[in-house]
Amino acid sequence: MGCVQSFRELCDRPKNTNVRISLPAVCIVWETAMIILFGIFIRYDDDSDSHWIDDRKETNKSDMENEFYFRYPSFQDVHVMIFVGFGFLMTFLKRYSFGAVGFNFLIAAFGLQWALLMQGWFGSLGPDGKIKIGVESLINADFCVASCLIAYGAVLGKVSAVQLMVMTLFGITLFAVEEHIIIHIIHAKDAGGSMVIHTFGAYYGLSISWMLYRPNLNQSSRLQCSVYHSDVFAMIGTLFLWMFWPSFNSAIADHGDGQHRAAINTYLALASTVVTTVAMSSLFQKHGKLDMVHIQNSTLAGGVAVGTAAEFMLMPYGSLIVGFCCGIISTLGYIYLTPFMEKYLKIQDTCGIHNLHAMPGVIGGIVGAITAAAATESVYGVEGLKETFDFVGDMSPTKQGGYQAAALCVAICFGVGGGILVGCILRLPIWGDPADDSCFDDEHYWELPQDEESTQPVLQYNNHMRNKDVIETTFNMQQT
Amino acid sequence: MGCVQSFRELCDRPKNTNVRISLPAVCIVWETAMIILFGIFIRYDDDSDSHWIDDRKETNKSDMENEFYFRYPSFQDVHVMIFVGFGFLMTFLKRYSFGAVGFNFLIAAFGLQWALLMQGWFGSLGPDGKIKIGVESLINADFCVASCLIAYGAVLGKVSAVQLMVMTLFGITLFAVEEHIIIHIIHAKDAGGSMVIHTFGAYYGLSISWMLYRPNLNQSSRLQCSVYHSDVFAMIGTLFLWMFWPSFNSAIADHGDGQHRAAINTYLALASTVVTTVAMSSLFQKHGKLDMVHIQNSTLAGGVAVGTAAEFMLMPYGSLIVGFCCGIISTLGYIYLTPFMEKYLKIQDTCGIHNLHAMPGVIGGIVGAITAAAATESVYGVEGLKETFDFVGDMSPTKQGGYQAAALCVAICFGVGGGILVGCILRLPIWGDPADDSCFDDEHYWELPQDEESTQPVLQYNNHMRNKDVIETTFNMQQT
Amino acid sequence: MGCVQSFRELCDRPKNTNVRISLPAVCIVWETAMIILFGIFIRYDDDSDSHWIDDRKETNKSDMENEFYFRYPSFQDVHVMIFVGFGFLMTFLKRYSFGAVGFNFLIAAFGLQWALLMQGWFGSLGPDGKIKIGVESLINADFCVASCLIAYGAVLGKVSAVQLMVMTLFGITLFAVEEHIIIHIIHAKDAGGSMVIHTFGAYYGLSISWMLYRPNLNQSSRLQCSVYHSDVFAMIGTLFLWMFWPSFNSAIADHGDGQHRAAINTYLALASTVVTTVAMSSLFQKHGKLDMVHIQNSTLAGGVAVGTAAEFMLMPYGSLIVGFCCGIISTLGYIYLTPFMEKYLKIQDTCGIHNLHAMPGVIGGIVGAITAAAATESVYGVEGLKETFDFVGDMSPTKQGGYQAAALCVAICFGVGGGILVGCILRLPIWGDPADDSCFDDEHYWELPQDEESTQPVLQYNNHMRNKDVIETTFNMQQT
Repeated sequence: MGCVQSFRELCDRPKNTNVRISLPAVCIVWETAMIILFGIFIRYDDDSDSHWIDDRKETNKSDMENEFYFRYPSFQDVHVMIFVGFGFLMTFLKRYSFGAVGFNFLIAAFGLQWALLMQGWFGSLGPDGKIKIGVESLINADFCVASCLIAYGAVLGKVSAVQLMVMTLFGITLFAVEEHIIIHIIHAKDAGGSMVIHTFGAYYGLSISWMLYRPNLNQSSRLQCSVYHSDVFAMIGTLFLWMFWPSFNSAIADHGDGQHRAAINTYLALASTVVTTVAMSSLFQKHGKLDMVHIQNSTLAGGVAVGTAAEFMLMPYGSLIVGFCCGIISTLGYIYLTPFMEKYLKIQDTCGIHNLHAMPGVIGGIVGAITAAAATESVYGVEGLKETFDFVGDMSPTKQGGYQAAALCVAICFGVGGGILVGCILRLPIWGDPADDSCFDDEHYWELPQDEESTQPVLQYNNHMRNKDVIETTFNMQQT
Repeated sequence: MGCVQSFRELCDRPKNTNVRISLPAVCIVWETAMIILFGIFIRYDDDSDSHWIDDRKETNKSDMENEFYFRYPSFQDVHVMIFVGFGFLMTFLKRYSFGAVGFNFLIAAFGLQWALLMQGWFGSLGPDGKIKIGVESLINADFCVASCLIAYGAVLGKVSAVQLMVMTLFGITLFAVEEHIIIHIIHAKDAGGSMVIHTFGAYYGLSISWMLYRPNLNQSSRLQCSVYHSDVFAMIGTLFLWMFWPSFNSAIADHGDGQHRAAINTYLALASTVVTTVAMSSLFQKHGKLDMVHIQNSTLAGGVAVGTAAEFMLMPYGSLIVGFCCGIISTLGYIYLTPFMEKYLKIQDTCGIHNLHAMPGVIGGIVGAITAAAATESVYGVEGLKETFDFVGDMSPTKQGGYQAAALCVAICFGVGGGILVGCILRLPIWGDPADDSCFDDEHYWELPQDEESTQPVLQYNNHMRNKDVIETTFNMQQT
Repeated sequence: MGCVQSFRELCDRPKNTNVRISLPAVCIVWETAMIILFGIFIRYDDDSDSHWIDDRKETNKSDMENEFYFRYPSFQDVHVMIFVGFGFLMTFLKRYSFGAVGFNFLIAAFGLQWALLMQGWFGSLGPDGKIKIGVESLINADFCVASCLIAYGAVLGKVSAVQLMVMTLFGITLFAVEEHIIIHIIHAKDAGGSMVIHTFGAYYGLSISWMLYRPNLNQSSRLQCSVYHSDVFAMIGTLFLWMFWPSFNSAIADHGDGQHRAAINTYLALASTVVTTVAMSSLFQKHGKLDMVHIQNSTLAGGVAVGTAAEFMLMPYGSLIVGFCCGIISTLGYIYLTPFMEKYLKIQDTCGIHNLHAMPGVIGGIVGAITAAAATESVYGVEGLKETFDFVGDMSPTKQGGYQAAALCVAICFGVGGGILVGCILRLPIWGDPADDSCFDDEHYWELPQDEESTQPVLQYNNHMRNKDVIETTFNMQQT
C-alpha cells in the first residue's frame, strides 16, 4: 500500500475542470478508431445479411424464424433500461441530473461500439477474421455497457466525462475477458448476468471509488442530496428498470421455454422485493416513514439476484424467496453498510451500488450455483436438463454447480483487480476531475440555464427558522 | 344507514399516521404467506416448463409457437401502464408525488402475487391441485391489479399505505370472483376489461371513498392542486397509458386477427377521444383555455369504452364514434359531475375516476352488448363468428348480447357492494390514515428532502397582490 | 415578394388568443368528418378481419404468420416516439411544457386519422372503393404525423392550437401526395423516411416559420429559454426517440433480414452521433462545458441520416461514418447556422429542426442514393438485390440511385412549396395566435396552476446582483 500512498500524494494538485481539449480529443480519436476497426472486422450475420433470402428458401423457413423476431422486443426493453433506466435512476441528486443522464448517455453510446468489437474478438470471430453481428450482439453489447454504468453509480458526481470514458474503455475490455472466461472457458450459465454483469460491475466501480477516495468530500454535502422533483425523476429510472428486468434476464436465454421461464422468475422476484423493501424502510426509520432511496434502489435487488438462476427451474416460490431476502438485505445495506463503508473502508458509494448490485449479484451467483447443483432429471426432463445447461460429455449438475461458484470468484477478482488498476490510472491529474467542494455539481461541466430556483439562495430558509441570519442579511442588504 | 352512522362516530378519534409497526408487519406476514401458498400451488405451465422441448419435438412445432412470443410484447406494454402509467398519472398533486408513484408501486407489486393465486384458484386449477402460470397469467395478474389502482385514484391522498394494502387484498379477491362469474359462468367476452376491470374498479373505489367521506377535507385544499412540473409528470403517465392501451385491449384477445383488430379499434377510439376532449375543455372554460385535468384524464376514456368490443367487428368508424362520445362525456363529467358528487353524494373522487373509468366502463359494457347482439355471419364469417365469441352449443349473437348486459350488472354490483364492505373495514381507527388537514401531503409517510420550494412558504404571494397580509407578515418578521 | 409584403401588412392587427369558439368548432367539425369518411372508406384488412381464420386454414398458416406479430412491437416503439418522444423533446422551454406536450398530443391524434384516409386513398384503395387498414397502416399514419410534428418544432411557442390543426391538415395532405410520388411513382426506397418524413417535414416547418416571421420576437426572449427541470424533461423525449429509432427505421422494412439490418444500422449510426456531438459541443463552448441543446437534439441526427439507407447493405462501418458526420454537422448547425438563419434569412426555428431534421434528412437522401447506386450482386446476392430494392423489369442499381436523388428533390420542393402556401393561410388574423410578447407562454392557452415559482417574480434576482432595481422595488413595496 506504500506505493498507493505516494501515488496519492503525487496526485494532490489543484483541480482544473476544463475539458475543452481532452474531451473532444478523446471522443474524436476513439470514434475514428471505431470506424476503422468496424471497417476491418464487423459484418452482418446470416440473419441480417441480404443473402438470408437464399438461406430461407433453401431450408423452407418462415420469415418469422429470423432471430430478429425472437429477440428484438427484449432488446428494445434492455435498451430502455440502459439509457432511461440507469440514466434517470441517477438523476436523484439536486444539481447533478444533467451529469447523470447526459454522461450515462455518452458512455453507453461509446461503450456499446467497443463492446461489439471486444465481445466479437473473444466470442464470435469467424474463420475469415470477421465478426458477424445480429440482434443478439446488440443485446450483449448493451449488457456489457450495463456493467460500466453500474460502476458509474459508485463515482457519480466525483469524476469528469474524460475519466468516465477511460473507465468505460477499460471496463468493457475487462468485461469481455471476464465474460469469455466465465461463459466459454468455465461454461457457467449466467443469462441475466448476476455474476458477469452485476458482481463484476459493482466491484469494479467500488474499487475505483476506493482508489479515488476524497477525504474532504463533506465539503460538497449540501449538494449530495435530492430535492422533491429530482426524486420523482429518479423514480422514472427505477420503474423502467423494474418493469423491463424480466426482459433483461430473458433476453439471451434459450428460445421458447427458457425465455418464458426467465421472464416469469424475474417478474416474481421483483414483486416480492418491493414488499420487503417497504417493510424494512418503514421499520428502520423514525415514525415509520419511507425513504425514497430505498424505494428507488432496493426494490430492484431481486432482479439482480435472480439473474443467473432465472432460466433454471427455480420454481415460482423460489423466485419469491430470493426477492424476499434481497429486499431485506439491500435495504439494511443502505441503512447500515453504506455509512460504515464510507467511514471505515474509505469507499464512497454515491448511488449505493454495493447494496443494489454487489450483494444481490453475489447472492445471485450463489443461488445459481445451488440451483444448478440441485438440478435433477425428474424436474427438468432428460432433454430439458441438457437443453437448459447445454451439457456436453460427462457434465453433471453437481459439477455445473461447482463451475458456477468458480465463475462467481472470477467475476469478483476481475472487478476488484480491474478497479484498482483503472483507479490508479484515473488518479493521474490530467483528467479534469472536480475539486472536493465542486462535486455533485453540474455547474462545472454543463452550460446551466438561469433558474429561478438557483438564483434565490439568499432568500431561502426553512420552516423552523434555523437560518435566521440569512434572513437578516437579506433584509439589511435590501435596506442599504 | 343507522349502523353506518354510529360506526362513523365510533371511528372519530384523533389520527396517528405512524405506521412503523403495522406496515412492516402487514408486508412481512403477507409476503411470507405468498411464499408458502406459491410453494403449495404455483408451478410453470407447459410453455414455460423445461419439459416443453419434448412437447415441441413431438408436435414438430417451431420455437416461435411458444405462447411467450404471442403475448410478451403486449405484456410488457401492460406492465408499463400499471407501474408508470397509473403511477405517474397520479403525480399531479403538488405534494403527493411520492405517495402516488410509491404506493402505486407497492400495491401493484403485492397485488399481482395475490392475483396469480386467486385467478389460479378460480380459473386454472389443474386436476393435480396446481396452478400453472405462463405469460398470459402475468397479464391477467396485471389486469387484476389495474382494478385496484383505479380504485386508489378515488382515495388518493386520503389513506395510508396499510389501508391500501387491505383495500388491494380485498379488491383482488373480489375481482377474481367477479371475473370468474363474468367470464367462466356467464361466458361474456371482455378482452379489454371495460366491465371486469374498469367498471368494477371504479365503483369499488367510489364506494370506499363514500364510506371514508371526510366532511372537513377542505382543510387540505391548499395541497389538493397541482404545480407546473407536477402536471408535466402526470402527462408521462397519461401518455404511456394512452400509447399502450392498444396493447392492453389486445393482450389476451385471440391469436391473430383478434389481437390485430383489438389494437386497431383501440388506437382509433383513443385518437378520436383526444380531439373531442380538447374541444370540450376549451368550450367550457373562460377564454377557451385548456384544462390539464381534462387532457390528462379524459383523453383516455375512449380506451376504456372500447375495451369490451375491441376484439369484435366494431368497424373503424364504430371505434371513432365510441371515442367521440367518451371524450365529450368524460370531460363534462369533470366539469359538472365531480363537484356535484362531492357536494351532494358525499363522494370525494381525487382523480375523477368516475369520469375516466366508471362512465366509460359502463358505456363500454353497453357497446359490447350491442355489438355482440348485432353480430351476423355475413360480417364475421361462419368460422369467424364462432371463433370470436367462442360459441358452443346453441348460443346466438342475441343471447350473447344479453349475457354481456348481465355481466355489466355483475361488475357494478361487485364494485358497489364490495366497496361498501371494505370501506367499513377501512374506517376502523387502526390503519394510520391522515387527519383531514394532513391529506394530500407526503410529509406524513415519506422522509422528504429539504427543498428550496418547500422551505419558502412565507415569501409566497401571487402576481395580483391578493395575499398582501402574507407580505406584511414577512416584512414585519424581518424587521424585528 | 410584393404580394407577400402587402399581405403581411394586412395581417398586422392586434392579437386575440381566445380560441373558445374556433378550437372546439374545428375539432368537432373535423372529427365528425372523420367518422363519416371512415364509415364510407375504411375497413379491416385481411389480417385483422374475422374472416382471416378461413384464409389461415386454407393456406395452412400458423397464427404467427399474421402481420401483427411482424410489426406490432415496432409499431408500439414508433408510437412512443410520436407521443412521448416528440412531445417531451419540446418541453425544454421553461413555460411552454404544457403547449409542447399537449398540442403535440392533439395534432398527432387528429393527424393520424386524416393520414389513414389520405394514405389509403393514394396507396391502398381497393377495387371496391374501400381502404383496408392493418398494423402497417397504423405505422404509416404515425410516420405521416411525424412530419407535422417536426414542422411544429420550428413554430413551437409562436402559434395557436387552431393554427396547428390547419398546419397538420395541410401537412398530412401534402405528405400523402409527396409520399405517393416518391414511393409509388418514382419507386424510390425510403424505409426510415429520411426524405419522405424528415426532409419534407423540416422544410415544411421552416417555410411556415419564414412566412410567420416575427421581427419583434425578442420581446419574449425571457421565456425562450429553459430551466433546470425542463431540460431534464426534454431528455425524456430525447432518449425515447434515440432508443426507439431503430424501430422507426425498421418498422416497415422487409420482413426478416430487412428489418434486422435496418435496426442494426440505426443503432450504430446513433451511437456514433452521440460521441461526436459531445466532442463538438465541448470544443465550441467556453471552458469546454456541454450544452444541453446539443445533447438533446444533435445526438438524434444519425438516426435521421441513416433512414433511407438503413435497410440497404450500408455495412456497420458505413453507419458509423454517417453518424460521425451528422453529429458534427448538426452541432455546428446549432452553434452557427441557427443564429445566422434568424438574423439574415428571417427564419425563426425554435427547436432547431434545420439542424436535427433538414440537414441530416438531406444527407440521408444522398447517402441512400449513393448506397443504392453502388449496390452490386456480389454484396447483396442475386435474390437479395431484387428483394431489397424490389427491382422489376430492367431496373439497375445505377438507375435506382438516380431515382433516389430525384425523390430527395421532390421532398424538398413539397416541403418548401407547401410551407409557403400554408404559411400564407396561417397569416390570416383569425387563428388566435399570440402577440410577440406572449410567445413561449402557456398562460394564454392553458389554465395554469398557482406555482410557487411563478408567483415570486419580484423577489427573483441572481447571485451577481445584476437586477438590483428589482430588489429595491420589492423593498419599497414592502415598506409602503
